[in-house]
Amino acid sequence: LYPHTGGAFTIGVTGPTGTGKSTLVDKIIEEYRKRELSVGVLAIDPSSAFTGGALLGDRVRMMDHSLEKKVYIRSMASRGDLGGLARAARNTIRVLDAAGMDVIIVETVGAGQTEVQIASTVDATVVVLMPQLGDEVQAFKAGFAEIGDLFVINKSDIVNPAKTIYNIASGLQVKDGWRPPVLKTVAVKGTGIPAVVDSLEKFQKHLEAGGLREKRLRKRIESELVDAAFSDFYHQTVRRLGDQKELDSLVARVVKRELDPETAASRLVGIISKMGERA
Amino acid sequence: LYPHTGGAFTIGVTGPTGTGKSTLVDKIIEEYRKRELSVGVLAIDPSSAFTGGALLGDRVRMMDHSLEKKVYIRSMASRGDLGGLARAARNTIRVLDAAGMDVIIVETVGAGQTEVQIASTVDATVVVLMPQLGDEVQAFKAGFAEIGDLFVINKSDIVNPAKTIYNIASGLQVKDGWRPPVLKTVAVKGTGIPAVVDSLEKFQKHLEAGGLREKRLRKRIESELVDAAFSDFYHQTVRRLGDQKELDSLVARVVKRELDPETAASRLVGIISKMGERA
Repeated sequence: LYPHTGGAFTIGVTGPTGTGKSTLVDKIIEEYRKRELSVGVLAIDPSSAFTGGALLGDRVRMMDHSLEKKVYIRSMASRGDLGGLARAARNTIRVLDAAGMDVIIVETVGAGQTEVQIASTVDATVVVLMPQLGDEVQAFKAGFAEIGDLFVINKSDIVNPAKTIYNIASGLQVKDGWRPPVLKTVAVKGTGIPAVVDSLEKFQKHLEAGGLREKRLRKRIESELVDAAFSDFYHQTVRRLGDQKELDSLVARVVKRELDPETAASRLVGIISKMGERA
Repeated sequence: LYPHTGGAFTIGVTGPTGTGKSTLVDKIIEEYRKRELSVGVLAIDPSSAFTGGALLGDRVRMMDHSLEKKVYIRSMASRGDLGGLARAARNTIRVLDAAGMDVIIVETVGAGQTEVQIASTVDATVVVLMPQLGDEVQAFKAGFAEIGDLFVINKSDIVNPAKTIYNIASGLQVKDGWRPPVLKTVAVKGTGIPAVVDSLEKFQKHLEAGGLREKRLRKRIESELVDAAFSDFYHQTVRRLGDQKELDSLVARVVKRELDPETAASRLVGIISKMGERA
């Protein structure tokens, strides 16, 4: 499968809840379809460590598109395992990519650690905000500024978005020769959507022209390999630790307060290192 | 410091936002103070990977108590690094413990992965809910059921909490000889608080009587040591990987699609294992 990947342009759409991300994604899909490009969508729902199930209301709503030809939608619940989620997302993106999709949109709900991880799996990240979200957005701004290649102020008919646009634009810097644009939309009315897709296509050309896409891909692959390898190493080693007396003995000494946890942890690092040797 | 720990009874208070956790914690502190016990409080605020700063409104409000003698309050922002947060929380709990606090309350805001991690650092976990939170609580219930030793239906004057109590109680099981009670409170009015603290004291006795506290402590120490050791091993190894050509070469081959990511990751596991040997 993997040799057949690399053709799709992958877009992450993220931002706080309530900003209308799903509707915006719907409209972006429509716009790409008008331009005769095929679109795959991966919707990642937030899920506490507890639910497992997740809130898939958005998925149901997006089913309108999944009935269309050339739009493939898949939902994933996060299950609280962010590393695992990013890994599963990468593999699903590859399936959609190998299946010949021109564009793949990864929508994440909510904001936080997940977004950082998802931003590390796509070519372009769209951050969706709305006018005057206030302190919350102020707080998020700095971090979103780092991951966003394109900013969309949705619901910009509710209040004048000028102040929000100013606040966001003033916090952005040119990165790899690209100044992230700040666009306004009213997704429910379809207002501003062609400009968003124009910007995405412009960014796609920018990435490809400067060899930037491969440079970014190299960084992504590096962190993917490191994450996957350590995750596998962890699971293998924990299993083997369970068969041994060394961990039990360290735990017993810490419980008795003969040994402090930091010292015990550093001895365990030594044990882990030697287990690699015997592997 | 560590040899002086172990005297404090540690309580985690968790649950969805909007259930009045902070007010409940305030009242529990007051009740313990009436019983002439010293109380340390650690407030863990949710924080996206982005903000760093976090929303410390609750802390400010809780400062009323921090002016009191024998109540020590410390806030921590999570910074998106859950493993690091749990580690920092454990160490702060130990400082409060060694300082001679009788009771240490760890309050987490929001629900999710953080709660599971925090639940693994305390003796008792209180899950705060409110009547008819609806589907959201239904979804969370299963997972909360696993971590809760005591359930509090706060704001139980808004609507009749009978149905919520029934729903929750029916999902709970006897665990280590303890059936988690489901209590109702109106924290803003102080209603039901003595019963909550009575239950906590009863649970504390239950833990100590059956050797259960040490059994639980052993499990906590084990996961703490494993987490800390792997985290340290990871950071050491990633640093050393950066000095080597092997990772770069794997990445280059994956970028060229000569090698798929899963195969490359498993080769990297081999490299990591051998690095341990040379450590």
